Amino acid sequence: MIESDLLRHIYSRTADLSRFGQVVVGPGDDCAVLRAPSGDHLLLTVDQVVEGRHFEAIADPSKARVLDGIGRKAIARSISDIAAMGGTPTATLATACLPPGFPQTSADELFDRMHAWALHWGAPLIGGDIAMGPDLGNSAKPPLLLTTTVLGVPHAGRGPVLRSTAQVGDELWVTGRLGNSFASGRHLSFEPRVAEARWLCSRAGAEPTAMIDLSDGLGRDADRIARASQVRIEIDARLLPLHPDCTDRRRGVSDGEDYELLFTASPGSLAEGASINAVPLTRIGRIVAGPAGAVIRTDTGLLDASGLGWDHADPRP
Amino acid sequence: MIESDLLRHIYSRTADLSRFGQVVVGPGDDCAVLRAPSGDHLLLTVDQVVEGRHFEAIADPSKARVLDGIGRKAIARSISDIAAMGGTPTATLATACLPPGFPQTSADELFDRMHAWALHWGAPLIGGDIAMGPDLGNSAKPPLLLTTTVLGVPHAGRGPVLRSTAQVGDELWVTGRLGNSFASGRHLSFEPRVAEARWLCSRAGAEPTAMIDLSDGLGRDADRIARASQVRIEIDARLLPLHPDCTDRRRGVSDGEDYELLFTASPGSLAEGASINAVPLTRIGRIVAGPAGAVIRTDTGLLDASGLGWDHADPRP
Repeated sequence: MIESDLLRHIYSRTADLSRFGQVVVGPGDDCAVLRAPSGDHLLLTVDQVVEGRHFEAIADPSKARVLDGIGRKAIARSISDIAAMGGTPTATLATACLPPGFPQTSADELFDRMHAWALHWGAPLIGGDIAMGPDLGNSAKPPLLLTTTVLGVPHAGRGPVLRSTAQVGDELWVTGRLGNSFASGRHLSFEPRVAEARWLCSRAGAEPTAMIDLSDGLGRDADRIARASQVRIEIDARLLPLHPDCTDRRRGVSDGEDYELLFTASPGSLAEGASINAVPLTRIGRIVAGPAGAVIRTDTGLLDASGLGWDHADPRP
Repeated sequence: MIESDLLRHIYSRTADLSRFGQVVVGPGDDCAVLRAPSGDHLLLTVDQVVEGRHFEAIADPSKARVLDGIGRKAIARSISDIAAMGGTPTATLATACLPPGFPQTSADELFDRMHAWALHWGAPLIGGDIAMGPDLGNSAKPPLLLTTTVLGVPHAGRGPVLRSTAQVGDELWVTGRLGNSFASGRHLSFEPRVAEARWLCSRAGAEPTAMIDLSDGLGRDADRIARASQVRIEIDARLLPLHPDCTDRRRGVSDGEDYELLFTASPGSLAEGASINAVPLTRIGRIVAGPAGAVIRTDTGLLDASGLGWDHADPRP
């Protein structure tokens, strides 16, 4: 089974929640958007990190640095979803399912690190739940599993930036650099692009028209914008801003967990070579008419982008 | 390690979130209370159900009835937390971590059942995340693990009903009947007391003064109200409304997962023998001055209630 098949099933069942006045945006974007009784819009997202999938099996739970990386990533992934909507995070709820025998001091330390990172991004931990996983026998242990729900508020001027609103004629831009997130360890230390998203949304008349954060690879995530917006996205492989330690251009397209922002904007609304707080902005493609989907133009021709990238339910490459 | 030790650690670290204007109630109650930009209060809770702890290991994932019970419980536990604050549920986010090899059709069915139950309680699924657990080798499989975050709105008149506001002189009441939730299967089929909580909160001048839902057993949960409110709660064991299949009075105090409402109210604000929609209300004790904590008066004397009940991180009795 792959994650995307199940997601397709879910989206098909939740396509029409319009009879619930409180639901502004349901499943399928980086965040859901909920209307509070007085009309406020709220952003909501939940994500999970699983030992052995999203981070390496913990060899020594007494290592504070390891616990810090895991706790940071658990919080940062959801914060990045808020950024992908152009929003500002406000509060966090977290759950932990701990393997039997996980030391109390390590659990305390892990919580402290999650709490510290949640505070760092302005979204204090206001609730949660702790459970102990079952004893599996055979000296096997259930994985440590954390989930984080983060709430946020959309940009007051721009409102929530969806995936589905890219326009033919727009340019495709990306923040920062791409590729090699796992091997480099950046998947544990990336900085969610909250400030950058806010900056982009503050430029009245030149705000992003659509946006997503890169969790599953540029190819796959660009394809998500393209299909949600019913447009064709053409990425120019020569323009990709790769990390110096990522020498394979193809991996800049297919590697997951960059957590950079991929967004569309009206032509000319951003200057070539622009940056925000020293984070570069790079134009890497354009939105054209045609069958919905993302393609990548390389030296050898056009590639379908949707198959480049990875499915979190697939075995780790 | 037991859950309550870790919770104590967490509460000590999050005691003062008052510098965050959006946090009205932080960790330690059934729900957190968040203030939206325009002043609306929102209830937020998250809970998890873990295979082998909160429900039996799934022998046959093709059994729709089994999946329905699991999906129902996952949603209902969080709905019950909203009820415990006197609120109305409005939206749900869910995560699933599936064992490798879990059939696609079973995953679809499980989602459909969660979606149906979330709709049933007026809180449609608006977002979520799916992951696959790691392969553990040794023919061991990671447990199926679901989390549900539910949002709600407090009662417009009463506002959120906290644990910490019981008053000396109040009476202690409980909805429904107690005990034997696991063996009877009621832990999979209980009805969260949303309508009952709303009814109680609608009686201006006679609303509950404090409330909690019974997840960890009457003794332990009564002790939580007592300590949060800094009062002494005396429960009269002879008054406990036991289920007919629970013949041991002690288990009516110590069994977990009844998911009834335990609340305090001014003397005389409810009539003996009252019921709501055929759910009985029973006066089972009183709030007195004295050292904070809950005690139970039995034929043989007073028992400390805090040790009766169970910790979700302890091995299942």
